[in-house]
Amino acid sequence: MKRKGILLVVSGPSGAGKGTVCKELLNRNDNIDLSISVTTREPRPGEIDGVSYYFTEKDDFKKKIDEEAFLEYAEVYGNFYGTPKEKVFEKLESGRDVLLEIDIQGALKVKKIYKDGVFIFIVPPSMQELKSRLELRGTETRESMINRFESAYREINFVFSYDYVVVNDEVDLATNKLEAIIEAEKCRVHREKNFIEGL
Amino acid sequence: MKRKGILLVVSGPSGAGKGTVCKELLNRNDNIDLSISVTTREPRPGEIDGVSYYFTEKDDFKKKIDEEAFLEYAEVYGNFYGTPKEKVFEKLESGRDVLLEIDIQGALKVKKIYKDGVFIFIVPPSMQELKSRLELRGTETRESMINRFESAYREINFVFSYDYVVVNDEVDLATNKLEAIIEAEKCRVHREKNFIEGL
Repeated sequence: MKRKGILLVVSGPSGAGKGTVCKELLNRNDNIDLSISVTTREPRPGEIDGVSYYFTEKDDFKKKIDEEAFLEYAEVYGNFYGTPKEKVFEKLESGRDVLLEIDIQGALKVKKIYKDGVFIFIVPPSMQELKSRLELRGTETRESMINRFESAYREINFVFSYDYVVVNDEVDLATNKLEAIIEAEKCRVHREKNFIEGL
Repeated sequence: MKRKGILLVVSGPSGAGKGTVCKELLNRNDNIDLSISVTTREPRPGEIDGVSYYFTEKDDFKKKIDEEAFLEYAEVYGNFYGTPKEKVFEKLESGRDVLLEIDIQGALKVKKIYKDGVFIFIVPPSMQELKSRLELRGTETRESMINRFESAYREINFVFSYDYVVVNDEVDLATNKLEAIIEAEKCRVHREKNFIEGL
């Protein structure tokens, strides 16, 4: 019998480097798919439907909300973004692991619907380091940087709703930890029920 | 602040190969200590006190039972065997991981006392393979082999009291899984509380 894939839900404050770690994880692992979000915002130049996002109209998006077609969704600056439930579940059923890189509010919603998910919170090694990273980006005003820093502080409290915390000191090491978590989770007794009963 | 070590409790039916896997795990990892049992049985030639076992007298052992000095103990063929609580806890406090390779009854007792332990059950890839392995040993009578096989069948039901099940197909791969479990467990949010609060 085929083993179900694992739903990995990864969040973390901005500056923690979750994007880089997730990218490295996907590069290394052929069996993990990044979940592609549905959005109502306009495609930007170069964005391809079904690759960057699934682009759709607001009416259609709202219909899908009513049909409970999303694992989670949110409205940001007037545009909707959502994680399509069926696509994710299909992949999991076929044995592929699926990575959701989403914000904390989204992750908490997913947790309510899909308890079998593995919830991972990525943090910087220290708040000082987070500050340096935000400064290094250099793309932001002082005010928006202070905002980000303060919201990172607030966000870190949500780590206790997650299963794992991964300290992103070095991208390679943090990615190793994610891989270890996946391998360990595949040995969890409740996931191996079918195999055990087969014995 | 120093992180506490992890208590690894490893069990499995005979023929699953848990001894070999545990040995390989210890060979690879300097930070893991095998817990040394206390016993009232006579030392055999070559056995050194404090290395193979801590050898002690029956009276002393019984006194220690009354003092609740054991994480678990059992009487086997008139001899007592026990896991010394204080020694294990000292190591864990100092940040070292401790490996207990014990039978299911022992593991269930440890689970009651020390919920923070990581309980791992090692199984053969199939019952056919287990049978072959028992036959290969060639050291047993047909009757004792059938006994072992039947008790393996019964024992496998206890896997649901454990956290993880590791299929021992190849020793190297099974050891990799144990290492992944340890690395993942070190990322568990409840174990990283001090670090998170430090942030």
